Order: sequence, then structure tokens, then C-alpha cells
Amino acid sequence: MATFMDVHHGMKGLTPEQFRQAHDADLAVEGEEGVHFEHAWADPESGDVFCLSEAPSADAVRRVHERTGHAADEVHPVAYSA
Amino acid sequence: MATFMDVHHGMKGLTPEQFRQAHDADLAVEGEEGVHFEHAWADPESGDVFCLSEAPSADAVRRVHERTGHAADEVHPVAYSA
Repeated sequence: MATFMDVHHGMKGLTPEQFRQAHDADLAVEGEEGVHFEHAWADPESGDVFCLSEAPSADAVRRVHERTGHAADEVHPVAYSA
Repeated sequence: MATFMDVHHGMKGLTPEQFRQAHDADLAVEGEEGVHFEHAWADPESGDVFCLSEAPSADAVRRVHERTGHAADEVHPVAYSA
């Protein structure tokens, strides 16, 4: 398992309900891909959303987000954290 | 106080020591700006670094990173988190 930070662009105007629904959808299927989303942060002004996960691979993170209808634009392996 | 996610680009090849030194420098001066950096995550492959903070304003976050020599490329107010 490794840590990943993924980024979604283009979510300008995202409402709290849409954010919650999208995150809940990820949590509902993450286990099938061996992923766990620990946190998510949304900036609806810029439209950027950041998700922190523990996962076996970047592809597993991508698959969860694709299955729930909001593909990630970037998936970053986290080499160091503090 | 509010939550911010800031992003630094262009840090390809960042070493663990450089990452630690940069984060420690932020922690050393953050109090003077009323900011607290809670976490930081580095992807030296893409060169992107993400910092999560509690701060009075985006400008306060910017000032800390400018004072320590690594200006943020993006500072996102976090409207919702999970």
C-alpha cells in the first residue's frame, strides 16, 4: 500500500451535497479496488478537488474514481509526507 | 481561521531532506502569520507538493511560503472537506 494525492479539475460550483455524494460513492466501491480514501478537500471557486488515499497503485485510485463517474485528472504518488 | 490547500509545482527531484527542511522552515515562521501547516505531501516525480493549513487568509499562507523561499503556485480555500 502507498499514499496518493489525486486532483480533479473543472468542478467549479460544486455544492456541498454534490461533494458529499461523490465522496460517498467513492467510499462505497473503494474496497473492491483495495483503496481507502482518507480525506477529500474541495475548492468550488477554482473547481479543484483533492483526495488523499491509501491504495495498492495509482491505477486502483483511477479505477475507483472512474467507476463513480468522476475521473481524476492527476494521481500523484506521495513519496514523502509530514 | 479557515482551511487552505496550497500547491507548489516545479519541485521535480526534491529529496526527503529538502522536503523536510522546507517544511521545517515553514513551521518555524508560520506562527508570526497566524498560520499552521498541518500536513504536506510531496511527489518528486511530477514535482508537485501539497500543503494543508489552517490560516486567517490565503495571503497569510502565501506570505509564509514566500518568506521561506518557496512561493506557492496555488492557494485554494477549502470550502468543504470529508
